[in-house]
Amino acid sequence: MVRRNLFLISSSKVHGYEYLQHTRDALTDFLKKNNVSKILFVPFALFNHDNYTKKVADAITTWGFEVEGIHKHENPVEAVRKAEAIYVGGGNTFMLLKTLYEKELVEAIRERVFSGGAVYVGSSAGTNVATINIKTTNDMPIIYPPTFDALRLVPFNINPHYLDPIPGNTHHGETRQQRIEEFHQLNNTPVVGLREGTALLVEDDRITLVGDFNARLFYKSKAPKEMPPNSDLSFLLKE
Amino acid sequence: MVRRNLFLISSSKVHGYEYLQHTRDALTDFLKKNNVSKILFVPFALFNHDNYTKKVADAITTWGFEVEGIHKHENPVEAVRKAEAIYVGGGNTFMLLKTLYEKELVEAIRERVFSGGAVYVGSSAGTNVATINIKTTNDMPIIYPPTFDALRLVPFNINPHYLDPIPGNTHHGETRQQRIEEFHQLNNTPVVGLREGTALLVEDDRITLVGDFNARLFYKSKAPKEMPPNSDLSFLLKE
Repeated sequence: MVRRNLFLISSSKVHGYEYLQHTRDALTDFLKKNNVSKILFVPFALFNHDNYTKKVADAITTWGFEVEGIHKHENPVEAVRKAEAIYVGGGNTFMLLKTLYEKELVEAIRERVFSGGAVYVGSSAGTNVATINIKTTNDMPIIYPPTFDALRLVPFNINPHYLDPIPGNTHHGETRQQRIEEFHQLNNTPVVGLREGTALLVEDDRITLVGDFNARLFYKSKAPKEMPPNSDLSFLLKE
Repeated sequence: MVRRNLFLISSSKVHGYEYLQHTRDALTDFLKKNNVSKILFVPFALFNHDNYTKKVADAITTWGFEVEGIHKHENPVEAVRKAEAIYVGGGNTFMLLKTLYEKELVEAIRERVFSGGAVYVGSSAGTNVATINIKTTNDMPIIYPPTFDALRLVPFNINPHYLDPIPGNTHHGETRQQRIEEFHQLNNTPVVGLREGTALLVEDDRITLVGDFNARLFYKSKAPKEMPPNSDLSFLLKE
């Protein structure tokens, strides 16, 4: 058994909901079950760390949790080593990953999460970096990271903000599914297409799909599979 | 004056047209004006090089030009050195750039184009790699290239397949404009948002917008500007 407690959200914003509200109940349950009272927020996927931390704190403190930004700590590695919950917010995945490496947080977060010391919450880019690598991000590569390898808290890929083809669309850019099929020409790991409004709850060796929509599961050289809400996706950890 | 003759297409496929047909007249003029009879096609942005070369040849040979795939040459650098036209097709920008470096084609193409020996035609990913770097590609980073720096045939960035926000869209992934604004938080070069159905014709120090749609021009910390068909964009080469 691998120890880990992860809550990997597709996106913080969902149509029809205020910021983070779509996942309020499930995320609150997750944090309470793990006795979290204070959250270390990692705002490095966006540029204004203070504003970003305030935005997340404004949403989450009303649920009964304390939020502090990691950028306020002189020693961010030490902050990770003491954290009970690490929440990595969305934004640009390339900038996020580069900053995590620069601040030597990749190994620090891995150790803290795998030792059971802290739970990990990711949203969008924060979900991308939790996986094996960032090769299935939707973001623009605005900065060159030292590698595409990421936190490897789970041994597969996620495509957050997964998007179905828009009927009647006349644009000729690739669909999301075509992009993931391109990924599978060069890579073997499964990809979970995580639609907005859904999340993966990872408890040690068990994964549950959270939210009201299906996930779309992509394997190399196989037809994609729709997985309904509450599906047990633990098999993804065995391959 | 810098010598160069480039035809940089947003996309080979455009709604309502057969493959490459939207640009048939302008591209034929460009090639004839430069006395091209044979085109060296670079299919490295897709996986099946033979099929891809055949698809392009099927379209272009009927216009009166010969097409050969660079992958058929034992020495691709030598093929570039002898080429009169180099056409780099679209697909995945990351895979394309990585392959160009692996086969030592980046410097070879630069030298050939800047010496006036060959004209350069790019489409989509082939247009991305013609610019200063690939940081404004739309593609998924399915493979890690040695750098994001590209052919630098022009000193600015292009976003091919440029897409306006879709009215009534409920998806919360970033719009194309938001992504380019993120790029400008970390980078200073102008970005030409090149809509499907348009191209840039670059003749030495002169640039003309080709096609029936506006281009959208993005500068760091400025409001974007719409440039109508046939605009003179030569000022982009002076900054």
